[in-house]
Amino acid sequence: MPDSTLLDVFPSPSASPFLIEHIAEEFTSVCPKTGHPDFGTVTIRFQPGATCVELKSLKLYLHSFRNEGIFYEAVTNQIRDDLVTCMSPRWLEVVTDWRGRGGIRSKITADFGTQQS
Amino acid sequence: MPDSTLLDVFPSPSASPFLIEHIAEEFTSVCPKTGHPDFGTVTIRFQPGATCVELKSLKLYLHSFRNEGIFYEAVTNQIRDDLVTCMSPRWLEVVTDWRGRGGIRSKITADFGTQQS
Amino acid sequence: MPDSTLLDVFPSPSASPFLIEHIAEEFTSVCPKTGHPDFGTVTIRFQPGATCVELKSLKLYLHSFRNEGIFYEAVTNQIRDDLVTCMSPRWLEVVTDWRGRGGIRSKITADFGTQQS
Amino acid sequence: MPDSTLLDVFPSPSASPFLIEHIAEEFTSVCPKTGHPDFGTVTIRFQPGATCVELKSLKLYLHSFRNEGIFYEAVTNQIRDDLVTCMSPRWLEVVTDWRGRGGIRSKITADFGTQQS
Amino acid sequence: MPDSTLLDVFPSPSASPFLIEHIAEEFTSVCPKTGHPDFGTVTIRFQPGATCVELKSLKLYLHSFRNEGIFYEAVTNQIRDDLVTCMSPRWLEVVTDWRGRGGIRSKITADFGTQQS
Amino acid sequence: MPDSTLLDVFPSPSASPFLIEHIAEEFTSVCPKTGHPDFGTVTIRFQPGATCVELKSLKLYLHSFRNEGIFYEAVTNQIRDDLVTCMSPRWLEVVTDWRGRGGIRSKITADFGTQQS
Amino acid sequence: MPDSTLLDVFPSPSASPFLIEHIAEEFTSVCPKTGHPDFGTVTIRFQPGATCVELKSLKLYLHSFRNEGIFYEAVTNQIRDDLVTCMSPRWLEVVTDWRGRGGIRSKITADFGTQQS
Amino acid sequence: MPDSTLLDVFPSPSASPFLIEHIAEEFTSVCPKTGHPDFGTVTIRFQPGATCVELKSLKLYLHSFRNEGIFYEAVTNQIRDDLVTCMSPRWLEVVTDWRGRGGIRSKITADFGTQQS
Amino acid sequence: MPDSTLLDVFPSPSASPFLIEHIAEEFTSVCPKTGHPDFGTVTIRFQPGATCVELKSLKLYLHSFRNEGIFYEAVTNQIRDDLVTCMSPRWLEVVTDWRGRGGIRSKITADFGTQQS
Amino acid sequence: MPDSTLLDVFPSPSASPFLIEHIAEEFTSVCPKTGHPDFGTVTIRFQPGATCVELKSLKLYLHSFRNEGIFYEAVTNQIRDDLVTCMSPRWLEVVTDWRGRGGIRSKITADFGTQQS
Repeated sequence: MPDSTLLDVFPSPSASPFLIEHIAEEFTSVCPKTGHPDFGTVTIRFQPGATCVELKSLKLYLHSFRNEGIFYEAVTNQIRDDLVTCMSPRWLEVVTDWRGRGGIRSKITADFGTQQS
Repeated sequence: MPDSTLLDVFPSPSASPFLIEHIAEEFTSVCPKTGHPDFGTVTIRFQPGATCVELKSLKLYLHSFRNEGIFYEAVTNQIRDDLVTCMSPRWLEVVTDWRGRGGIRSKITADFGTQQS
Repeated sequence: MPDSTLLDVFPSPSASPFLIEHIAEEFTSVCPKTGHPDFGTVTIRFQPGATCVELKSLKLYLHSFRNEGIFYEAVTNQIRDDLVTCMSPRWLEVVTDWRGRGGIRSKITADFGTQQS
Repeated sequence: MPDSTLLDVFPSPSASPFLIEHIAEEFTSVCPKTGHPDFGTVTIRFQPGATCVELKSLKLYLHSFRNEGIFYEAVTNQIRDDLVTCMSPRWLEVVTDWRGRGGIRSKITADFGTQQS
Repeated sequence: MPDSTLLDVFPSPSASPFLIEHIAEEFTSVCPKTGHPDFGTVTIRFQPGATCVELKSLKLYLHSFRNEGIFYEAVTNQIRDDLVTCMSPRWLEVVTDWRGRGGIRSKITADFGTQQS
Repeated sequence: MPDSTLLDVFPSPSASPFLIEHIAEEFTSVCPKTGHPDFGTVTIRFQPGATCVELKSLKLYLHSFRNEGIFYEAVTNQIRDDLVTCMSPRWLEVVTDWRGRGGIRSKITADFGTQQS
Repeated sequence: MPDSTLLDVFPSPSASPFLIEHIAEEFTSVCPKTGHPDFGTVTIRFQPGATCVELKSLKLYLHSFRNEGIFYEAVTNQIRDDLVTCMSPRWLEVVTDWRGRGGIRSKITADFGTQQS
Repeated sequence: MPDSTLLDVFPSPSASPFLIEHIAEEFTSVCPKTGHPDFGTVTIRFQPGATCVELKSLKLYLHSFRNEGIFYEAVTNQIRDDLVTCMSPRWLEVVTDWRGRGGIRSKITADFGTQQS
Repeated sequence: MPDSTLLDVFPSPSASPFLIEHIAEEFTSVCPKTGHPDFGTVTIRFQPGATCVELKSLKLYLHSFRNEGIFYEAVTNQIRDDLVTCMSPRWLEVVTDWRGRGGIRSKITADFGTQQS
Repeated sequence: MPDSTLLDVFPSPSASPFLIEHIAEEFTSVCPKTGHPDFGTVTIRFQPGATCVELKSLKLYLHSFRNEGIFYEAVTNQIRDDLVTCMSPRWLEVVTDWRGRGGIRSKITADFGTQQS
């Protein structure tokens, strides 16, 4: 069951806007309709505010979706929301890229805030 | 025969603009001139309004072109029009990318509305 | 409906063993269980006897599977048998390589005779 | 829990030796030491005896490893043994190719019988 | 000899701006200095006005350069001019990408009008 | 018109068997049925006898097929025969790999003699 | 131990803004938490002011991180700061791209100043 | 020794701005510090003014750097300056992309004027 | 300092010959001549006897070369010898593939025993 | 001028047959006919006898061909002969792979002795 309490943060090492990207290529959840597993890549890009998400806690959080029946769109929005809540970033984007079902691959993008240059 | 009644929608999980991309790599229709099969990839990108197209219904809708004699340009415009009618998206783009006939590959792009940031 | 009478041959241009390979990347048939389309590549390799299969007739023959409900294994064996019957090659191999269903890709190989060096 | 009773077979369409390869790119199980998920590709090649494994049953069987804590080597041997028991093939080879842990990727190969030409 | 009378058009299926791209990977002409053959890819992108170039007529038109002694720059400009004359597009771009002579590959781009969004 | 008198040789620099491979990626001839151009790659591998084919003469010889109406199989056999006649190699293999017509790519292999180790 | 005194500069050969990019694909440091080695690529892009960093001194400077326990974010910021101090560039960007730990790859970007066109 | 007198031009075939790109993948010069050879790719993009650089003269000009001891940055600036002098282009960009020394690859970009649309 | 006491084994799960391959892409040691770091991939293939090397112990063992000044050939032979001593495999092969120094990449292969089919 | 006295050796670290491969991707010499530079990759594989060629001496030896007018075949044989003379290997193979002239790429292979298993 997705568990946002697994997420941990550490203080950002820089006061000026900079960019962090984490790519988790081994994400899996379960299709709520068919019960079959879904496989995809989750890419998280953000400009930190005061804190950054800790990498190991992020991994465990993503693992907590393993046996959850959840749609592509809901996964994407939930990860975005959970990360915004725990980090309060300046800008954040979540992209989920799914290996596909029935010959159709899908990619969902949700973001928060505005990227600063 | 292309059948837009196969298309089904579900309510968008988010009120703010976000982005969905579906890539169907196994599209086939028939050339109306030669009767030979055409093969291509159909990419659909959109920012949903109130609803999103349901993935399985999209697959069956695309299958309904299988034995239709129809030109590249007409396929692209018809998919764009059928999806706009069933979903009323904020923005939508259809790209068809064809494996080619006579040594020439083709790519047709049609869109609707304006992408929102 | 698969139609082996579409296959045509021409006399082999050489009396000594040589090798011909045809790769048809746009093969499609229908799954007899689900009715969904299957997509794959058909590779035909052979050492001709007295005749070679004519390329355009081969294309039309492969197109005749388009709306046939037929399993991977049956397609492969039928193409092998039809080509052996029409050409009487010294050696022939048919490989079908399928894009996959449910996350599993498949490849079936059937041959006839012994390759000569 | 791995469940070999999920495996189903159908009669082989050919009495002569031929070759079948199934590649499941979305296999996942769990490391029994760390509890972290493992991800890999399972390739199954065989020359059937009287029967072939049915593709959908193979998919469900592979899904049954999803939450099993099991080592790379044990997965490979168990799939080999379960398939040999259900199909009695002439020859069978199972290759598991793992995305890796700690910077090391691994590939395990187990086979049964002798490939016939 | 390049022959623009080979070009044929059909009415555009859409009154709003949309985008068509044709990629001819097997273009060949002759170097007017050395008499050696040149090989390249010709990419044509346009937003149609009232008409679109017909695909088979485009193929035959491009074939008509086969034995013409003509420089890279002249090919590119001539194709641009001939297509503008026959189609009156809103916007058109011709890119020729040459495999190279003497270790130098070249790419020439010529356009007409302004792309509309 | 193919012209084997263009082929020139020079004495082999070594008395022991060694291996030479020339790959001409820009071969073109004409389909005798349709009059459309064919494009392919010609690979020539040989162990020289007393002489080797001179590279520039090989290029001009291959150019001489440019406007010849000739089938894939005939091209392959003719190049093999012409090179055997002019060089008397220990072993020679000609592979022609064609970009394809109507969705089918083809590859023809003809050889002469036995490769020596 | 990272040692910025290893960095050396030479006078910029041009007074107008131009662009230099150095890509070091063999960077390694140590994870301060686990003690395991981290591997990544460091890309440095800048528009020089009066001086440019000398390439060999840059290599030795990057080597000085080899046995340093340091987080991804700290590495990136330290390289940015050290290079800004030694070169006073108009604009500088440091991107570190890490091969990953626990199935997650990361990429950190830090910059200084504004790129001039 | 680099010799700009080798450069030759011909009149531009078009009065309107268009784009030419030449990519020389086999550039070599010598490192003035170590005497070891440097290898790289030189890409030249420009919008011609009244004249274009002739391709064969460009090749010979680039060959003239073969035994010159010269730094990456100096090569890039010299080619830019020599081409600007001989052609007076509207816009020109020279990119040198070096295979690297000591595990670091480098890319230098210098330009002249402003690209016109 | 390379430390073979770090290597640990577990009992082989199968009495019949089977094949294990581990690929460590992030190996680094130090050139004993120049003191510069070397980077490479170490591939270990073996048919186990009574025991298999444990994966985490293998990782730590490979890390122990990190600051060792040692030649390519010596690394390869030492890993082969240490693994043969700790596992007594039926067959073992070590391949080291180095990213290169001075424009030359190298690959060293050492083995033990004979692979069993 | 090619200078085999540049080649240096060191004692082989192993008495049993093992395999060394060196790949020099930045080889250049000069065409004796046209004076234009040739570029290629030189691959050297050998099973050492009592000695191995030292890597830096090999690099300098290969650099000594830089301004030599010499044919592909002669380069290949000379490198083979010079290495056999200096190392007395059990088995040695030299492959030169040239980027091509006039649209034809070439690859020359010369060897010495018999590879031992």
